[in-house]
Amino acid sequence: MFNSFGNLLKLTTFGESHGVAIGGIIDGFPAGITVDFDAIQKELDRRKPGQSAIVTQRKEPDTVQFLSGIFEGKTTGASIGFQIQNTNQKSKDYSHNTNVYRPSHADFTYDKKYGARDYRGGGRTSARETANWVVAGALAKQLISHININAFTSSVGDLFIDKPYQELDFSKIDSNIVRCPDAATAEKMITKIKEIKKQGDTIGGTITCVIQQMPVGLGEPIFQKLHAALGNAMLSINAVKGFEFGSGFCGAKMQGSEHNDSFNPDGTTATNLSGGIQGGISNGMDIYFRLAFKPVATIMQDQKTIDADGNAAIIKGKGRHDPCVVPRAIPIVEALAALVIADFYLLDKTRRI
Amino acid sequence: MFNSFGNLLKLTTFGESHGVAIGGIIDGFPAGITVDFDAIQKELDRRKPGQSAIVTQRKEPDTVQFLSGIFEGKTTGASIGFQIQNTNQKSKDYSHNTNVYRPSHADFTYDKKYGARDYRGGGRTSARETANWVVAGALAKQLISHININAFTSSVGDLFIDKPYQELDFSKIDSNIVRCPDAATAEKMITKIKEIKKQGDTIGGTITCVIQQMPVGLGEPIFQKLHAALGNAMLSINAVKGFEFGSGFCGAKMQGSEHNDSFNPDGTTATNLSGGIQGGISNGMDIYFRLAFKPVATIMQDQKTIDADGNAAIIKGKGRHDPCVVPRAIPIVEALAALVIADFYLLDKTRRI
Amino acid sequence: MFNSFGNLLKLTTFGESHGVAIGGIIDGFPAGITVDFDAIQKELDRRKPGQSAIVTQRKEPDTVQFLSGIFEGKTTGASIGFQIQNTNQKSKDYSHNTNVYRPSHADFTYDKKYGARDYRGGGRTSARETANWVVAGALAKQLISHININAFTSSVGDLFIDKPYQELDFSKIDSNIVRCPDAATAEKMITKIKEIKKQGDTIGGTITCVIQQMPVGLGEPIFQKLHAALGNAMLSINAVKGFEFGSGFCGAKMQGSEHNDSFNPDGTTATNLSGGIQGGISNGMDIYFRLAFKPVATIMQDQKTIDADGNAAIIKGKGRHDPCVVPRAIPIVEALAALVIADFYLLDKTRRI
Amino acid sequence: MFNSFGNLLKLTTFGESHGVAIGGIIDGFPAGITVDFDAIQKELDRRKPGQSAIVTQRKEPDTVQFLSGIFEGKTTGASIGFQIQNTNQKSKDYSHNTNVYRPSHADFTYDKKYGARDYRGGGRTSARETANWVVAGALAKQLISHININAFTSSVGDLFIDKPYQELDFSKIDSNIVRCPDAATAEKMITKIKEIKKQGDTIGGTITCVIQQMPVGLGEPIFQKLHAALGNAMLSINAVKGFEFGSGFCGAKMQGSEHNDSFNPDGTTATNLSGGIQGGISNGMDIYFRLAFKPVATIMQDQKTIDADGNAAIIKGKGRHDPCVVPRAIPIVEALAALVIADFYLLDKTRRI
Repeated sequence: MFNSFGNLLKLTTFGESHGVAIGGIIDGFPAGITVDFDAIQKELDRRKPGQSAIVTQRKEPDTVQFLSGIFEGKTTGASIGFQIQNTNQKSKDYSHNTNVYRPSHADFTYDKKYGARDYRGGGRTSARETANWVVAGALAKQLISHININAFTSSVGDLFIDKPYQELDFSKIDSNIVRCPDAATAEKMITKIKEIKKQGDTIGGTITCVIQQMPVGLGEPIFQKLHAALGNAMLSINAVKGFEFGSGFCGAKMQGSEHNDSFNPDGTTATNLSGGIQGGISNGMDIYFRLAFKPVATIMQDQKTIDADGNAAIIKGKGRHDPCVVPRAIPIVEALAALVIADFYLLDKTRRI
Repeated sequence: MFNSFGNLLKLTTFGESHGVAIGGIIDGFPAGITVDFDAIQKELDRRKPGQSAIVTQRKEPDTVQFLSGIFEGKTTGASIGFQIQNTNQKSKDYSHNTNVYRPSHADFTYDKKYGARDYRGGGRTSARETANWVVAGALAKQLISHININAFTSSVGDLFIDKPYQELDFSKIDSNIVRCPDAATAEKMITKIKEIKKQGDTIGGTITCVIQQMPVGLGEPIFQKLHAALGNAMLSINAVKGFEFGSGFCGAKMQGSEHNDSFNPDGTTATNLSGGIQGGISNGMDIYFRLAFKPVATIMQDQKTIDADGNAAIIKGKGRHDPCVVPRAIPIVEALAALVIADFYLLDKTRRI
Repeated sequence: MFNSFGNLLKLTTFGESHGVAIGGIIDGFPAGITVDFDAIQKELDRRKPGQSAIVTQRKEPDTVQFLSGIFEGKTTGASIGFQIQNTNQKSKDYSHNTNVYRPSHADFTYDKKYGARDYRGGGRTSARETANWVVAGALAKQLISHININAFTSSVGDLFIDKPYQELDFSKIDSNIVRCPDAATAEKMITKIKEIKKQGDTIGGTITCVIQQMPVGLGEPIFQKLHAALGNAMLSINAVKGFEFGSGFCGAKMQGSEHNDSFNPDGTTATNLSGGIQGGISNGMDIYFRLAFKPVATIMQDQKTIDADGNAAIIKGKGRHDPCVVPRAIPIVEALAALVIADFYLLDKTRRI
Repeated sequence: MFNSFGNLLKLTTFGESHGVAIGGIIDGFPAGITVDFDAIQKELDRRKPGQSAIVTQRKEPDTVQFLSGIFEGKTTGASIGFQIQNTNQKSKDYSHNTNVYRPSHADFTYDKKYGARDYRGGGRTSARETANWVVAGALAKQLISHININAFTSSVGDLFIDKPYQELDFSKIDSNIVRCPDAATAEKMITKIKEIKKQGDTIGGTITCVIQQMPVGLGEPIFQKLHAALGNAMLSINAVKGFEFGSGFCGAKMQGSEHNDSFNPDGTTATNLSGGIQGGISNGMDIYFRLAFKPVATIMQDQKTIDADGNAAIIKGKGRHDPCVVPRAIPIVEALAALVIADFYLLDKTRRI
């Protein structure tokens, strides 16, 4: 229950940052789908540490090994087990923090909830877990290959793209290391992150995700509304503090007469403040949503804190961390979006005979 | 699956706006809790239509009848069935809309998904469903009576409370009809809503919810993060377009050195940008979050649309609807928050022997 | 969780024997199915008390009222709420038993688990709950109307049908009050039950259920094996002590060379000791299984027992109970079988694209 | 959903007989339990092939590796990932069967359901999967170490123990290779199985399982009755055709006056035909149940069958299979029983505040 995600297409995961391996089981994946292993590895590579100057310099090859559920290149309908070895664990980097609570991390809450914790690299709380999600999401994308999912960096600190997404060229997302499709803004963001890194500090940002070529009718109307499922998924990503779709928080300032999306004769709508979802169900228009990421809590500066016994302590900034988590979170957002959409795609097959 | 909410404490619901009744089943509620029926009815009264000049003038007594699971005033551990009769259905108000798609409603998506729909008063899509949630939430509040949950109107259109919630007196929330604890702002909001109503228009707003006296340790760290569960719940409410907790979207503009909450010797934190949750688990500080509500889609103005055959049509604004959904949504937000917290309260009993 | 049944087609129920009403919510039922209400009521009538000389003389009209999810005679895809009023409660019949534990009933275990219980007529433990199952099962039958499900009384005490089911005429099941399609055996069973009733005693029996015109491929191979789901369902019926399918317990005495079902060229098998299921998945042959019902625990004789304080007590046999539960359990068995098969029918739609 | 087992304590598995590895994830296991790894391996050794003259001579070391969720020898509350490498795959043994359907195996049903199958050693249908269950069950035993679970071979073919279980010494179960605690019967069973093996044939049998020192109050009364959950679990084991508990099928021949278990002043019962469960909830008496295993379908004799194109074919008996599955199934039965009991043990913590 606690480590599972999805209804019919279900991902269950395990793994600590510095354990033997992380991995998962994908259940409910239909039989007969040809698996493109390179595409999966490519998504992992987009997420992996050490890929550019503005992300953590930790090195993990992050190679996924599939253990079951695929035979002669195709899914068999059986559960798909997979794992990623932890090869570069360096737990000594973290040994100085075994007894102190890092501010705005989960050290304190884990200790209180479970009575103890695997403190090496954050253990189960580490964002390393998201590599599992990327594997499953990359597979899900292959199940719904007729649907396009693109996430990109829409802001870093107070630098943001000042164009609607329709004016962006999504093929440019991976053309720069910050994964912002607007070249001029990307440039500024990269400079900003490098600056922040030099200060030993971190910075927040936002990601926008757009889902296109959506079929009409996905989503369930009461407690599995499509946007609620997407929100739930996105809020599972470490550091996410907010989720909005369609008009979002801006919509709260508007009047009905300006917010309503009037229908065109073909069933499309003239505007799309609804964000492609009405009553929890996709209407065929683009789905778009935006996520707020707080700045990474691990900074390379000394911070006052307490230890497990309540004594004052100083925590020193060591280790190799991301100055801004947003660029590496792009494939994670896409992966979770794909898992949600694929799950509802399967569910929808059962709602009408 | 589609009409159920929660893990151990599970609410399953049914009911259309203009059917015989709406209702639900609460499963997993522990035995031995004395039920305060008046408190439940009081919450329903806070939600019901017709309660003030700024909400819909529809009249529904909204009296809940419990059918099982309570014996001699206490819960028995059996499932709790309940229902609310639909007494004032007036379906003729809606008969003019049977074949046309109301803009930004779920008429179109329901028709496409299910092949047909109960068009009377919105059928299953009606926010009338939320009365079920209020019943269940009011009961959940009694299970976690040591925890305080307060929601209030924090903005209407561009009018907002410009104080931190710590400076507000929550006992004033119900002292005015817009449910804003800041009297001066409340006054302006009420005037604004009346104005909007006169125009036959509607307006959006935001609700802030604060959960106090939280125990440490509730929430699950991976896919049932406490804030993800809260977000999922809140995004189930009709018209909600966004959810943020703690620093929220503002946090995305900050640096780690200013965002981190440093620990006090007693385990509390000096600041609370985390919003009471770290790593998906409550840390004992206040939980607070904010929701964006779009303006109600039903307006009292003519709108261009299409019918089910794709012909252009004009939809006339009739019926009795809320000019601003926010004041009546306050008890709904509290109810869902209570259901989530109570569920995690039960779950947490099983995480450590 | 505790009061729900099924995966995609999910029934959740509530209700005590002597409460206001019993009822349930059917979730996941596809849209667009025309509902035959008479067929549902007919199944309820097959289960209801007072229908013949060999069942309890209690009178309950057992009329189901549907509250949602059906519009203009068809399912809408929304959750289907229903209820059955409790009209003939006579709780005074049970008042003498409020403090003593009836042998082989659940009084003792409920008290220990929940700290108290609704003692009126057995409360939630009453087989009255099964009326809910019959409603949902009768609806499920309409979803899988191409599949035939027939249950019948195969033994009462040591009287049993000594023919394979293939030699029976299922259209005769309801031609006698014991619901045994073999007229000669039925006659003996009826005499036996009347005799037992005169003694103030009760007697056990078995039910056989045969599912015909099964499609190939329903069931999941590991933890949702079709026969495990059927067994789980059947073991939920009060008084059931055993479940076997295909060769069952007899198969445990056989050798592989005689037990294996060899294939015919058309994919059918020459024998069917497998009982229509191989590896948890239907193979298109008849599914057949058998259930053991213990004798009803409430007898019209004095029995020694204890009260809640551990004092010796005598329990007097009063009330109106079935001398043999088997005839009235026939529609219950069929209902649960229909729910299981319909659930797997929906699930199977998602296992191959 | 399809490859998961349990409510709060949930096992999800993967793996094919001849894939890289099999394994699973145990979710919901409480934090703080010291893990006895030797005890887990010992259970695996009881299940593993090649352990005696009457089981398959296949050699698999079956060494489990834990990948997460355990830190410094204790569970952390995080999901516990584990795997068992497949070291002795010999897929060439099976290559002759790629296109023909083995009688009474799942080859045909898998092909029809999924469109293809991993035919190597039965793929996902192989009982090799049960090694995963043994790992999880052995861990569950450590969570409920105050409860004793003992399974034993109660019959092979028509040879059975003719004593009530109370007269058996469970410490003798592993004293012989057939795992029958009655030495004289064990001797005959072993001789019988060797004889059957010489014929290239297989034989069925039964297992009895007894759960002692049960707390009162485990189990849920409607759809998670303790015996229904046990039955569901046991019917998941390959080759099981029947399940009965307490008086079982014999109870169907009895009268209420002889079947009822009268209470002793201390709350125990004078007899225990109920099998330790009343109304789906444990009453503190011994739980006992019995399972029927059909003879293994793979025999060392030629059998007529068909291939995937419907052509007549002869299947030759090759490979290394068990002449009787019962002795190796003992630890599997105990493991599943432990998983069910441990799950309800956790659930029960939430049913009363």
